[in-house]
Amino acid sequence: MASNVILLITLALSNFICISFAFDPRPLQDFCVADPPGNTTCKDPKAVTANDFSLSCLNRPTDPFNAYGITAVLDAAATVPGFNTLGLAFARLEYAPSGYVPPHIHPRSTEVIYVLEGAIEVGFVTTYPEYKYYSKVLNKGDLFIIPVGLLHSQRNVARTNSVTAAASNTQTPAFIFMPDSVFAAKPDINSHYLAGAFKLDEKTVKDLQTKSWYNRSAKTM
Amino acid sequence: MASNVILLITLALSNFICISFAFDPRPLQDFCVADPPGNTTCKDPKAVTANDFSLSCLNRPTDPFNAYGITAVLDAAATVPGFNTLGLAFARLEYAPSGYVPPHIHPRSTEVIYVLEGAIEVGFVTTYPEYKYYSKVLNKGDLFIIPVGLLHSQRNVARTNSVTAAASNTQTPAFIFMPDSVFAAKPDINSHYLAGAFKLDEKTVKDLQTKSWYNRSAKTM
Amino acid sequence: MASNVILLITLALSNFICISFAFDPRPLQDFCVADPPGNTTCKDPKAVTANDFSLSCLNRPTDPFNAYGITAVLDAAATVPGFNTLGLAFARLEYAPSGYVPPHIHPRSTEVIYVLEGAIEVGFVTTYPEYKYYSKVLNKGDLFIIPVGLLHSQRNVARTNSVTAAASNTQTPAFIFMPDSVFAAKPDINSHYLAGAFKLDEKTVKDLQTKSWYNRSAKTM
Amino acid sequence: MASNVILLITLALSNFICISFAFDPRPLQDFCVADPPGNTTCKDPKAVTANDFSLSCLNRPTDPFNAYGITAVLDAAATVPGFNTLGLAFARLEYAPSGYVPPHIHPRSTEVIYVLEGAIEVGFVTTYPEYKYYSKVLNKGDLFIIPVGLLHSQRNVARTNSVTAAASNTQTPAFIFMPDSVFAAKPDINSHYLAGAFKLDEKTVKDLQTKSWYNRSAKTM
Amino acid sequence: MASNVILLITLALSNFICISFAFDPRPLQDFCVADPPGNTTCKDPKAVTANDFSLSCLNRPTDPFNAYGITAVLDAAATVPGFNTLGLAFARLEYAPSGYVPPHIHPRSTEVIYVLEGAIEVGFVTTYPEYKYYSKVLNKGDLFIIPVGLLHSQRNVARTNSVTAAASNTQTPAFIFMPDSVFAAKPDINSHYLAGAFKLDEKTVKDLQTKSWYNRSAKTM
Amino acid sequence: MASNVILLITLALSNFICISFAFDPRPLQDFCVADPPGNTTCKDPKAVTANDFSLSCLNRPTDPFNAYGITAVLDAAATVPGFNTLGLAFARLEYAPSGYVPPHIHPRSTEVIYVLEGAIEVGFVTTYPEYKYYSKVLNKGDLFIIPVGLLHSQRNVARTNSVTAAASNTQTPAFIFMPDSVFAAKPDINSHYLAGAFKLDEKTVKDLQTKSWYNRSAKTM
Repeated sequence: MASNVILLITLALSNFICISFAFDPRPLQDFCVADPPGNTTCKDPKAVTANDFSLSCLNRPTDPFNAYGITAVLDAAATVPGFNTLGLAFARLEYAPSGYVPPHIHPRSTEVIYVLEGAIEVGFVTTYPEYKYYSKVLNKGDLFIIPVGLLHSQRNVARTNSVTAAASNTQTPAFIFMPDSVFAAKPDINSHYLAGAFKLDEKTVKDLQTKSWYNRSAKTM
Repeated sequence: MASNVILLITLALSNFICISFAFDPRPLQDFCVADPPGNTTCKDPKAVTANDFSLSCLNRPTDPFNAYGITAVLDAAATVPGFNTLGLAFARLEYAPSGYVPPHIHPRSTEVIYVLEGAIEVGFVTTYPEYKYYSKVLNKGDLFIIPVGLLHSQRNVARTNSVTAAASNTQTPAFIFMPDSVFAAKPDINSHYLAGAFKLDEKTVKDLQTKSWYNRSAKTM
Repeated sequence: MASNVILLITLALSNFICISFAFDPRPLQDFCVADPPGNTTCKDPKAVTANDFSLSCLNRPTDPFNAYGITAVLDAAATVPGFNTLGLAFARLEYAPSGYVPPHIHPRSTEVIYVLEGAIEVGFVTTYPEYKYYSKVLNKGDLFIIPVGLLHSQRNVARTNSVTAAASNTQTPAFIFMPDSVFAAKPDINSHYLAGAFKLDEKTVKDLQTKSWYNRSAKTM
Repeated sequence: MASNVILLITLALSNFICISFAFDPRPLQDFCVADPPGNTTCKDPKAVTANDFSLSCLNRPTDPFNAYGITAVLDAAATVPGFNTLGLAFARLEYAPSGYVPPHIHPRSTEVIYVLEGAIEVGFVTTYPEYKYYSKVLNKGDLFIIPVGLLHSQRNVARTNSVTAAASNTQTPAFIFMPDSVFAAKPDINSHYLAGAFKLDEKTVKDLQTKSWYNRSAKTM
Repeated sequence: MASNVILLITLALSNFICISFAFDPRPLQDFCVADPPGNTTCKDPKAVTANDFSLSCLNRPTDPFNAYGITAVLDAAATVPGFNTLGLAFARLEYAPSGYVPPHIHPRSTEVIYVLEGAIEVGFVTTYPEYKYYSKVLNKGDLFIIPVGLLHSQRNVARTNSVTAAASNTQTPAFIFMPDSVFAAKPDINSHYLAGAFKLDEKTVKDLQTKSWYNRSAKTM
Repeated sequence: MASNVILLITLALSNFICISFAFDPRPLQDFCVADPPGNTTCKDPKAVTANDFSLSCLNRPTDPFNAYGITAVLDAAATVPGFNTLGLAFARLEYAPSGYVPPHIHPRSTEVIYVLEGAIEVGFVTTYPEYKYYSKVLNKGDLFIIPVGLLHSQRNVARTNSVTAAASNTQTPAFIFMPDSVFAAKPDINSHYLAGAFKLDEKTVKDLQTKSWYNRSAKTM
């Protein structure tokens, strides 16, 4: 009988769930708490509590520093379900003395970085009319904005740990780390092609394709 | 067996309904009639009729005047399912001789008000660079526009009933009535805090928190 | 010396006015009253008055009925400068007993029609999966919604004048009247091509191309 | 028991599927392959392959020329599920020597046309301040852009077959063919009304309403 | 001669500056640094430096606490010109031991609040289906999100100063403080009307209309 | 006197050109032909001709193959002013037998690639939940879609020249070539930092920073 049930469900879905993208991009309700977290459907408002909009203890990260000297707590719909559909994400990063984040791109968001402790060098590269690198050392209390979609870099330039808060103007800004997405992509991108593009010999490229790159877990959105 | 069925449904849902928000905000079909009304999924187009896009007799409201001297018929996706996803809402309001709508805000829509009978004073307050109040008495045949997100007021200034038509450029403009959302919110907002913010004594605030405020039913969107 | 001045202006323009379309579609200010009306630049807020958001006497149109038995007052940024950038337009149409609006399309807006006097037949045609015509006779107090971009028709079916109010969810919905834009376009569209497309003989097409079509003045947005 | 199951499904749906339109129009994931094709829900990423983003042999259309001398292959989410949510559609059209596409409108997209073989006359009609027809003969290697929502025409002006590639900046641009949507709409639009609007006698209109018009199958999006 | 020059400028403006709102909301360039700060035109990219994207020493506010016990540094296009068009704003607020921000609304943005020092109670009120107040005490390291357009409150609940960082997902979120915009609006909103709406006697309303309310300077965006 | 003139211009600008970003993203007119090409202001419609929407002879590129074996003709607002504000760009690329385009990202657009001659291998890398490489060899008549913002690769795999047409759903998709934007950015990004990120020795990085990379002229948008 289960198959009949599945059939009914399938019919119901194909009839009822041809969700429409709307002509009108404004929200239809006050909020849509993700249920379960990470999903994009709405929790019954009666079951929503203030905790759905909150996260505690970002200042006490539970992960150790990764191989790049970074530990991050990222707050978006995946961890705080009340962020769902609201167009913001937030993160706290702690850098070991020599820690850095590899060059990367958020194709879907602008990012603002605010230094809570220590000193950070940040910079981004333009796309037009030239590859210009705008960079600056930020001290505690300083702030910098990374325009949407541009490649940027961040590294600790203090002798101590540094800490930053960062906000993105979308729920899932996407992370494209360089060179990770080039050399860590599986199956391998053609090594002869990459050797030409990167002006490296093919053996070096093949070697890079076997390495372990930046830790990109679910926590990095 | 029911639990198995629920399990199957849940699996089906998690596979099929991870709805994507699109890069492209344009609609994917001609319309998406809400099914059931108030929902955001689409009715099978074969079952759609012209009646799904229509509402009759707005000029004969069935509700009596509320305590503020207002009776309203509001036409949006909740009452006319064909409004779903199309980015418009419409309303007819009738005001008793001393009737008024409390100051309120539609954070998600611009509103245009057209006077069908009588005379109405309308006005809105800017946010920057100062709190400036722009107001005007409208007579029959006159029209006024309320910019999106600004606090506004409406009151009957005729000796007779007045009637207005109003259009909003979103399906669910949201209503934040002042002072209702401050004093009617449950659980109570801290009364000491409100007393400071409103420069009233705390006893007055506590008294206001027990009153019955503007009738905000499902009909008011 | 004038040419020097022009040069200076040109330089200034190329330096200063490379306006950017923003990543963020939300407005930057409370309103932007068009200055002059019809333009898209903002009037100095200090010179703005409540009258900039208002229009009077829509119920007393000054134009006589046109050849189709229609007289319209349309309220958008071109006539009420405060509509500029706010995403709404509003109109009052009066129909003589046999009056009608030819089939037309607003590619940029949804429209809601509310009957103030008389009786109107309205209808629209879908694009997919078939050309289905949804139509309805509306009496005084009835309302109908036309989904964005669909061809629609309106005609008076009362023995008396009829009157409608209409709202559109954009400032300039654009009007493409059929068959006007086909047969009134100048220079003429190839008549042999149109004869094939419309399954008429070429002589009839050429004759239609000389006729006077629906009065599409600035007032029709 | 089936009715109990349906009830459960309905409950589940009303709890889980109140999809929210988001404040933030950016995508939540890298892609959302339509599953099944034509639907707007996402295929499990683990089941996605490169073939979901590809279509082969557009240059060898399988349909014969239709009555207008056109054969088209259209690539959008309906045929290539990876197009879903990405905001692009693509088409290859082949024209017989006297082939043409009737005047039509895409209310939801701009279109660019590139001539691969032969010669095509293309043109569009503006809406404001006048019905101006901008047209041009394109030869092999030439390109033309049709602004969003404007009525446009395309006809082969070569003695041989012509071929064009076309791109639209939305997944489902919608096709409103003229005069098809006027005369092919069912049920019939009032013929007396159409006769007035088109300045034809009513008998001619009734005759046109019985004809077979441009072949608008699922393939034409 | 000056008048001729002005005439030339005016002509040039009407020809060149009829800025179009685009069909495509994506940015046309990497960034558009406001020039001058607060304006929306772009600085010549060759004159842009990294400092245009940065602000220093947010952690050392130069303003004393205002009458509500708040001192704020707000970073948006008005203070950091590189924020222009990028869809983010950022702020650092310091609260004296009994400091608070009155209930207010940002009609154009979601806000995330992160506690850097001390403890803050934050809360927001929903609009539908009821006025529900979701609130929470945040300690150092905790975070809370305020959905777009909802009325919210913030007050220091620590015995010491508290400090928060806040991000908004638009450049100018707009501030509507309650009750400021009601009682501070000039010219005065009709006091009889406000007395009814707030269930206060008219004398109290008139008294409130003479008070000095929350300090809303240019710094509060 | 020139300084007086400049002063007048500046005043005029600050009064007239405080362009507002609108609440409503729909276009205000049929088109906005860039004037001059590359600018975002509108040409006087009376001066617009069909040629403003057209480009000829894309199939006869005038540039020789660059060092990567590529010659491209790109059609966007910079070359065809009628593309301005319409949300599309188009390109024809010709590849020498061993030609390739380095891995790159368009943060602002989806791209569709259609093979006109020869055979091309294309592929893209996802960002979540893993760096997965989706690639395919396309032959003449085949098509592939690259989701917005993802890193992708293209290389000729035919023994002869290959030719592709490509469309992007924005006017200026932006090009971030890898590794160009990393190693060609000026001033140099810190070489020690890049050595760590790329797992290369610092000397190799410094050497790469002196090389000549992919030819990114104005023609590449």
